[in-house]
Amino acid sequence: MADPVFNKLALIGIGLIGSSIARAVRRDNIASEIAISTRSAATLDRARELGLGDSYHLDPAEAVRDADLVVLCVPVGACGTVGEAIAGVLKPGAIVSDVGSVKGSIVKQLKPVLPKGVHLVPAHPVAGTEYSGPDAGFATLFQNRWCILTPEAETDPGAVQTVRRFWERLGSNVEVMSPEHHDLVLAITSHIPHLIAYNIVGTAADLEDVTQSEVIKFSAGGFRDFTRIAASDPTMWRDVFLHNKDAVLETLGRFSEDLSALQRAIRWGDGEALFDLFTRTRAIRRSIIDMGQEVAAPNFGRDVPDGKQG
Amino acid sequence: MADPVFNKLALIGIGLIGSSIARAVRRDNIASEIAISTRSAATLDRARELGLGDSYHLDPAEAVRDADLVVLCVPVGACGTVGEAIAGVLKPGAIVSDVGSVKGSIVKQLKPVLPKGVHLVPAHPVAGTEYSGPDAGFATLFQNRWCILTPEAETDPGAVQTVRRFWERLGSNVEVMSPEHHDLVLAITSHIPHLIAYNIVGTAADLEDVTQSEVIKFSAGGFRDFTRIAASDPTMWRDVFLHNKDAVLETLGRFSEDLSALQRAIRWGDGEALFDLFTRTRAIRRSIIDMGQEVAAPNFGRDVPDGKQG
Repeated sequence: MADPVFNKLALIGIGLIGSSIARAVRRDNIASEIAISTRSAATLDRARELGLGDSYHLDPAEAVRDADLVVLCVPVGACGTVGEAIAGVLKPGAIVSDVGSVKGSIVKQLKPVLPKGVHLVPAHPVAGTEYSGPDAGFATLFQNRWCILTPEAETDPGAVQTVRRFWERLGSNVEVMSPEHHDLVLAITSHIPHLIAYNIVGTAADLEDVTQSEVIKFSAGGFRDFTRIAASDPTMWRDVFLHNKDAVLETLGRFSEDLSALQRAIRWGDGEALFDLFTRTRAIRRSIIDMGQEVAAPNFGRDVPDGKQG
Repeated sequence: MADPVFNKLALIGIGLIGSSIARAVRRDNIASEIAISTRSAATLDRARELGLGDSYHLDPAEAVRDADLVVLCVPVGACGTVGEAIAGVLKPGAIVSDVGSVKGSIVKQLKPVLPKGVHLVPAHPVAGTEYSGPDAGFATLFQNRWCILTPEAETDPGAVQTVRRFWERLGSNVEVMSPEHHDLVLAITSHIPHLIAYNIVGTAADLEDVTQSEVIKFSAGGFRDFTRIAASDPTMWRDVFLHNKDAVLETLGRFSEDLSALQRAIRWGDGEALFDLFTRTRAIRRSIIDMGQEVAAPNFGRDVPDGKQG
């Protein structure tokens, strides 16, 4: 087995992402020691029962003492508070990272509170499921998924390299970009998809002429797909939208403009415009499958016979 | 094995749905004889190679001769033309059905052209995958899915009963409702989900600041889910929107209103409104799973370890 990338890892937050990191780090000897902190005593007990770490702390400052890498695995809106709580205890040369789905806000929240000599290397593993909590995690969550790092130009290259190696050992492909570009890219590949999924599930729940029971029964017509991401953690996603407001509103504007054009094509019976778009979109899925980011099996493989490939 | 429901079945169109019916009918002895017709010689040859039927015809009128049940498995917009082509050959007492995703338009297209003494029982199996063509079908496609029948009040009850038994033998649960109500229910459970999936994939493809390669790489953040239904058959879906215009536009109006409210909540930082909606939508997925219309496994089970359940 390969050597640890560093000695002590502190995970602040031990939900889906934190517990998946803990499991993979333990399995593959990526750090010698794992300290876990979370503010809920019940969650901390559960993490202990699951044997996810070496030490367990309600106070994040205790967990980060002597840590080489601290990874904040809490909702984006909580990162500044955690940063303040740990700032005085971080050892010189420690690296602080996170897993948040928004990066500009993370830099804004953490940079002012971290002491000189501590390196900030924000990270975003583009991976997850619709389940939450320490039981939801699994060691292969990051396997063949992308992890985006958004250090500033002046960040210590050695610190960036350490975080890169850490994520590569977790199975990810690593890419580096600016926080601003990250927030724009994720607005379209993640935030707007979640927003419109939440929205359509809400719309369906509020119709008067269609019963809830009908929505559920006939959901295999397409609706059920959207309920998966609309079942994602509400606190996490509230924070994403509050902290990536500008990019989300900008991208949502594009989406709505395009939807109005489709609406008009339907109203005026412009079958050619519909057919053209519907043909163009097919190719993109093929590319995602070819890049190993999606399965080829029909219906995500969920209710088709084994071996039935598209 | 149970007895056949009737003697001769004619399938007009042998794509995903038609070929799935053929496979299940053959496997479970639901009809004694299957005649297959499709207008493309290549597709007909492929159906013959796959052994999907007992006879193969380019002319639908030849296929329906002496048939007890004729099922049109063609895009909604083609049903009127097929109806005209077969009307003169249908035997007295024959039942004509279909599998279209819109039902009001089917009644409007077929009722005027079918001769007296032939029974029209429109049907819609709410099942499918994103793949098309005779190779895409499989015998269990309809297992535990719902099939909606939309006969008129004056339709012969025996004919309705035959079609009901046919779909039950294919593994479906059968529900009866009016064409108008069907078209409203499916607008929210199927047509609008497809429309917004097609739309967001189009929006993503057209952004200038985010490259196609970035959209593909980081699609695991949520976007890839939408590409599945946005890879569905373009001709079929063009026809759905052209033939269910009123219900689609009405439901799309609701969706857009709700989306504007969400947009406003983001702009004004109303975290409570976001959190409330995101919490409400979680429960609906749970109901869909409990009703057996969805898997509980995270990420539709596609990239999680065996046995990892939510």
